[in-house]
Amino acid sequence: MTFWQFVWDKTFSQYNSKQKKDEFIIVDHLHYKNKTIEIFLSHSKNINLYELEKLCDTVGWVRRPLKKVKTAIENSLLTISLFYKNDHTHKLIAFARATSDNSFNATIWDVVVHPQFQKKGLGRLLIDEIIKYLRTNDINTVTLFADPQVINFYKRLGFITDPEGIKGMFWYPN
Amino acid sequence: MTFWQFVWDKTFSQYNSKQKKDEFIIVDHLHYKNKTIEIFLSHSKNINLYELEKLCDTVGWVRRPLKKVKTAIENSLLTISLFYKNDHTHKLIAFARATSDNSFNATIWDVVVHPQFQKKGLGRLLIDEIIKYLRTNDINTVTLFADPQVINFYKRLGFITDPEGIKGMFWYPN
Repeated sequence: MTFWQFVWDKTFSQYNSKQKKDEFIIVDHLHYKNKTIEIFLSHSKNINLYELEKLCDTVGWVRRPLKKVKTAIENSLLTISLFYKNDHTHKLIAFARATSDNSFNATIWDVVVHPQFQKKGLGRLLIDEIIKYLRTNDINTVTLFADPQVINFYKRLGFITDPEGIKGMFWYPN
Repeated sequence: MTFWQFVWDKTFSQYNSKQKKDEFIIVDHLHYKNKTIEIFLSHSKNINLYELEKLCDTVGWVRRPLKKVKTAIENSLLTISLFYKNDHTHKLIAFARATSDNSFNATIWDVVVHPQFQKKGLGRLLIDEIIKYLRTNDINTVTLFADPQVINFYKRLGFITDPEGIKGMFWYPN
């Protein structure tokens, strides 16, 4: 077991039973700018929307009305935010959320990792955590809609495209 | 404008502003067993789960725990049930539901039409109604996961597969 797996398994077994709503827990350590930093996870929906918007800017997403983002977060079953601590404050560096019927199916949306923290396992950490949360709540079908450049990333995490010919379909206004 | 379109447009413009929670409204007339019957629509989540299970049996779905079906309905943004009146009671003949973040995206699940009422426009009626409801609530991306045999049906309603290479992906427990 690697150190990372150790921290991961240990932290989540604690998290699942004990985490309070606004708590930050350490889930990983990364090498960043010549030092080792701690990565914190929070499930709180009390999210700084300006900070989230800035994070989405770093990956080039189209800006969205903050009021709609707030509503989307409130109506998601689950949000995951990752932070690192800098000058005694937590800086948001990754985010994801999932909608669900809280029973059979969930759909993951808005997966974003700051470019300076990509390729360090944080995307996997977000998704693994969402799946762990959903399975704990007996929700077994996890779905998402993947842009072409991240399809292989999700395949490595165990997601499959078009199982038995099932197709993701979209309707947009004309 | 056909009679059907007239009833449809008229009823929904009324529905959007006026329908009460448990109200049945007439949305269509069909020819069935040598007579013309009225089709009623309801958005009520107060659904007879045994009746819904019987409807799902008619299309060969695997049975699901009623408690989980109840939770899924409660946590859906929207359910649509279609009925016809027989011997002074409403008989459930079609159903669909959608989960949503109530802001950007919605996903349609559990679209079912009784085999004796298929190919009569009720599937389109369900989906058009869901889209109309979502657009009224400023939710513009409507998604679903379509089995191979219904992909063309959804294409005729304006849904597209894999837009710009975006893929629906699934994760199931091993």
